[in-house]
Amino acid sequence: MKTSIATVCLSGSLRDKLAAASAAGFDGVEVFEPDLVAAPESPEEIRALADRLSLTLDLYQPMRDVEGVDEAEFARVLHRAEAKFALMQRLGMDLVLCCSNVATATVDDDGHSAAQLRALGDVAARYGVRIAFEALAWGRYIDDYRRAWRVVKLADHPAVGVCLDSFHVLSRGHDPVEIERIPAEKIFFLQLADAPALSMDVLSWSRHHRLFPGEGAFDLVGFVAHVLRAGYRGPLSLEVFNDTFRQTDTARTAAHARRSLRWLEDAVARRLAEDAPGADAVAAPPLSRLTAVTPPRGFDFVEITAEDTSPIEALLQQAGFTARGRHRTKPVTLWSAGTARIVLNEQHARGTAPRLSAIGFAVDDPAAQSARAQELDTPAAYRRTYAEEVPLPAVVAPDGTELYWAGYTEGEPDWVVEFEHGDPLRPTEIGVVDHLSLTEPWQVVDETVLFYPAVFALVSAGSTDVPSPRGLVQSRVLCSPDGAVRIPLNVAPPIVAEQGRADGAHQHVALRCHDIVALARQARDRGLRPLRIPANYYDDLAARFDLPAAQIAELRDLDLVYDRDATGEYLHFYTATVGQVFFEFVERRGAYDGYGAGNAPVRLAAQGVE
Amino acid sequence: MKTSIATVCLSGSLRDKLAAASAAGFDGVEVFEPDLVAAPESPEEIRALADRLSLTLDLYQPMRDVEGVDEAEFARVLHRAEAKFALMQRLGMDLVLCCSNVATATVDDDGHSAAQLRALGDVAARYGVRIAFEALAWGRYIDDYRRAWRVVKLADHPAVGVCLDSFHVLSRGHDPVEIERIPAEKIFFLQLADAPALSMDVLSWSRHHRLFPGEGAFDLVGFVAHVLRAGYRGPLSLEVFNDTFRQTDTARTAAHARRSLRWLEDAVARRLAEDAPGADAVAAPPLSRLTAVTPPRGFDFVEITAEDTSPIEALLQQAGFTARGRHRTKPVTLWSAGTARIVLNEQHARGTAPRLSAIGFAVDDPAAQSARAQELDTPAAYRRTYAEEVPLPAVVAPDGTELYWAGYTEGEPDWVVEFEHGDPLRPTEIGVVDHLSLTEPWQVVDETVLFYPAVFALVSAGSTDVPSPRGLVQSRVLCSPDGAVRIPLNVAPPIVAEQGRADGAHQHVALRCHDIVALARQARDRGLRPLRIPANYYDDLAARFDLPAAQIAELRDLDLVYDRDATGEYLHFYTATVGQVFFEFVERRGAYDGYGAGNAPVRLAAQGVE
Repeated sequence: MKTSIATVCLSGSLRDKLAAASAAGFDGVEVFEPDLVAAPESPEEIRALADRLSLTLDLYQPMRDVEGVDEAEFARVLHRAEAKFALMQRLGMDLVLCCSNVATATVDDDGHSAAQLRALGDVAARYGVRIAFEALAWGRYIDDYRRAWRVVKLADHPAVGVCLDSFHVLSRGHDPVEIERIPAEKIFFLQLADAPALSMDVLSWSRHHRLFPGEGAFDLVGFVAHVLRAGYRGPLSLEVFNDTFRQTDTARTAAHARRSLRWLEDAVARRLAEDAPGADAVAAPPLSRLTAVTPPRGFDFVEITAEDTSPIEALLQQAGFTARGRHRTKPVTLWSAGTARIVLNEQHARGTAPRLSAIGFAVDDPAAQSARAQELDTPAAYRRTYAEEVPLPAVVAPDGTELYWAGYTEGEPDWVVEFEHGDPLRPTEIGVVDHLSLTEPWQVVDETVLFYPAVFALVSAGSTDVPSPRGLVQSRVLCSPDGAVRIPLNVAPPIVAEQGRADGAHQHVALRCHDIVALARQARDRGLRPLRIPANYYDDLAARFDLPAAQIAELRDLDLVYDRDATGEYLHFYTATVGQVFFEFVERRGAYDGYGAGNAPVRLAAQGVE
Repeated sequence: MKTSIATVCLSGSLRDKLAAASAAGFDGVEVFEPDLVAAPESPEEIRALADRLSLTLDLYQPMRDVEGVDEAEFARVLHRAEAKFALMQRLGMDLVLCCSNVATATVDDDGHSAAQLRALGDVAARYGVRIAFEALAWGRYIDDYRRAWRVVKLADHPAVGVCLDSFHVLSRGHDPVEIERIPAEKIFFLQLADAPALSMDVLSWSRHHRLFPGEGAFDLVGFVAHVLRAGYRGPLSLEVFNDTFRQTDTARTAAHARRSLRWLEDAVARRLAEDAPGADAVAAPPLSRLTAVTPPRGFDFVEITAEDTSPIEALLQQAGFTARGRHRTKPVTLWSAGTARIVLNEQHARGTAPRLSAIGFAVDDPAAQSARAQELDTPAAYRRTYAEEVPLPAVVAPDGTELYWAGYTEGEPDWVVEFEHGDPLRPTEIGVVDHLSLTEPWQVVDETVLFYPAVFALVSAGSTDVPSPRGLVQSRVLCSPDGAVRIPLNVAPPIVAEQGRADGAHQHVALRCHDIVALARQARDRGLRPLRIPANYYDDLAARFDLPAAQIAELRDLDLVYDRDATGEYLHFYTATVGQVFFEFVERRGAYDGYGAGNAPVRLAAQGVE
């Protein structure tokens, strides 16, 4: 379907916004009036610029407080409207958004509002303009799309229809099913925004915290399905007021926004097909589809890059990893333990302290994965490969991490043979990569929360705040439904990010063990010094849980930390941090599915005194 | 009175927090349990450290979910409590905070909760510990201080009393007057926090947005007055969960927190004296007082510092300022117009682009102002003065701006004669400094909002968000009650601050004129080029207001912007920005009391394309 974006979603000048929307592949834009008012370009220039960029100007917005007013106020409304309609003619635009009255309404009567919309429709028609009337969630009298539609129906004017905005409907918890009763030709426009589940006043929520579809808690897929079932075939248009996107790079946000609609169109098409499997293809909306993929079966590898990877090698050796040799053509080594494979890369790494640079996913269908990544217009990552080597398709995640994929195999993947002069894999207590914890800049975390689900079919699984000595760390988890891939994202406190402190950029690789006590002893015997946990922690543990004193003494001796919930137990310990990276070793007992978040403050404090 | 602060208010390790609390002059601290658990120091070390720092350990907190539970759960509560009471003995502590149950309560019955508190009190008494029971605003059953007191009364145990927390009472809108009915000896502790007026769930509000007294919207003065009238004479203790203070410099936040209590004690003493003018001095609580000051009568001067102030001189000349000469002993010049005096300072300014470095206030009683600044433990600013020169007492505001004060005089102040070789003051359209707009780093804006009112008796007057092409600018106004001193504070979007962009640090000096149209013409004739305002702005103005076409043409010709409300009109124009500074010229017509905030987005966009 045709796609559009409101200029208010993006940072910069109106020129910047139009250029970015066009480059990202949008078909049109909504012109947010304050952007035009502040622009040095004349309306004629904007019209010509949009034309050159192949963008349609779909909706002029917003016109506020037009109905429910007394006669004197309505005269002022008409004065304002005539000026705006004349301006729209200069822009070559024919559709204006009128919001339900929040400020000047004094008459709470559908008939009265309808009569005023009808009168406004008469004026609009003279200018070739149509009015899309929208119920704001905080409208003084009209705050429900069903009432807005009743008023439009009463107005009964060809130039007056409704605008539907997912935020205003879903934030109020209104059931969108009745959208299907509105005749298609009276739905003049559709605005889409997601939002996190917040308990706050709806105006602040709307003005500061909207998100692009797929990033929040609203069922945008179901919402759009209702609108399409009503027969709407106009643009899918994004209107996202968000404090972060107002600041971030214009072109990047536009590309991210466009990706959210690509994901949404596909998800809606699947929903419609599920709901009505035998539906008529002719009547179906022209939704563009994505190649289907299944979530990764697990981590194929984890890559750490540094000018000198020796300190990481030392840690891996102490933990029981096997050195599998050096790559045939690159200054890259492979270490493995169980199915956990860690690639250490010294190529193009001058001046780089150890950092987690790439993740490999083991997927069922690499070709499908490649096709989907391309359809989502993801930036490609590049690594040179030679004829006899396994090709390495990859994309760059919003935070710069490179994401590779390769076909899943029961044994070791084909690319392992490219590493030479190493040892055969030895048995160890380590079984598998449990999770990878990434530190996200606050500017990109929302984009990331859409990126992994859209590209790799991961799912978003909750959010928590972790206190550190330097502020709260917001933690959000992405995972595959079976838990084989788990990626907690941590957003460092702004002051830590501003100061470029290393503790704002800790990433870690967590490795799951069969017997963590055995591993901890073996590793200590091989010289590993775990992160020291304070004695006070173990006193508190004894107060919180009825663990035997001998077990607490053992945990304390090995610097193991402990968590328990109704489903099982979680035991883990950490290494020191090298560059930006540290390792965690974990054992999950029973069905424990968390990450020991309660222990993170102790870990963060201990890392602060390292 | 004795003062205390919860360690959770501050960033850093427990050691850092204790050192900062002591240095700031607190008498004691509340030990926040997670801080102790994460600390490498043993309880004995913490006890000895506090002792060396002359800090008492006033309250161990929090112990959660102790009452309203079934028998099995209560056995676990007692296990946990014994361990904690033993720990408190090692710390030498005798008071613990128990919050009303949020998680495990299943019995909604005062008698049941009272019986469990009584049983807990028996155990506590064996360890020499007392329990301060507090109703959390989001307690499952007990969420009101009046019910917490009923339960404590029913428990009827010498080791069981209440803890009162201003946030939990005032956030729910509960009337604090009934505090006066609680016997003093049963109020075991008092926790104080302010908060902004937010409409959001009370748990998030409490965990992220508390403020120090005087920075928010709660009537802390009235609240404390009730508690003191009840007879409470224990510590005034701060417990402020705030995402910013968790990150900012520990010592600085502690000093800021201590200042909030100095201000609060004085304000409470005044309130108590007002309410009961003839009250018995013997029974009065020992509140420390501040020397009284009245708000400044106006701006004495504004100082701009730069290595080369010539570009500013050129602007001032074009605007009609008179060059009043060079200071006798410093590389400093004075420019004036009406009562507006601008000091240009090239001393110690190598590499400095023009920035607003100091503000002088004209006050009624400079000696009282100096005494009050010292009592509030404000950092002093220093400028060398010679024997025959007017002394320059000053403090440094949280954002680094130096704030001076001198006695108010009808004519020019005495220090003007220190400037030589200048011209006599010529008449001009400019009358007075209207306002000074400062850009605040997000880390210090809350501190600033307390600083000016506490030190200079300014008042806080509202907050608004202004969209810019690079994100939302939060704007808050401090002013004297008569409007003679007005200081809008602007908080730049984080990304602008992170990138150190100049547009994140625009400061401006607004000068009020008798006839702005005349001034704009004169300035243009003298070569001033105002900031260009786009034509679209004037088209929009015509749509919004019924101004005569000739007037709009005149505004447009002179790049004047316009605002109007029910009380009057506001006309203004801006200069280009030099370094971090620009000038605004304003005319207020009628009783207009704002700042043309609606025009700020247009100005910000125009500055972005300069």
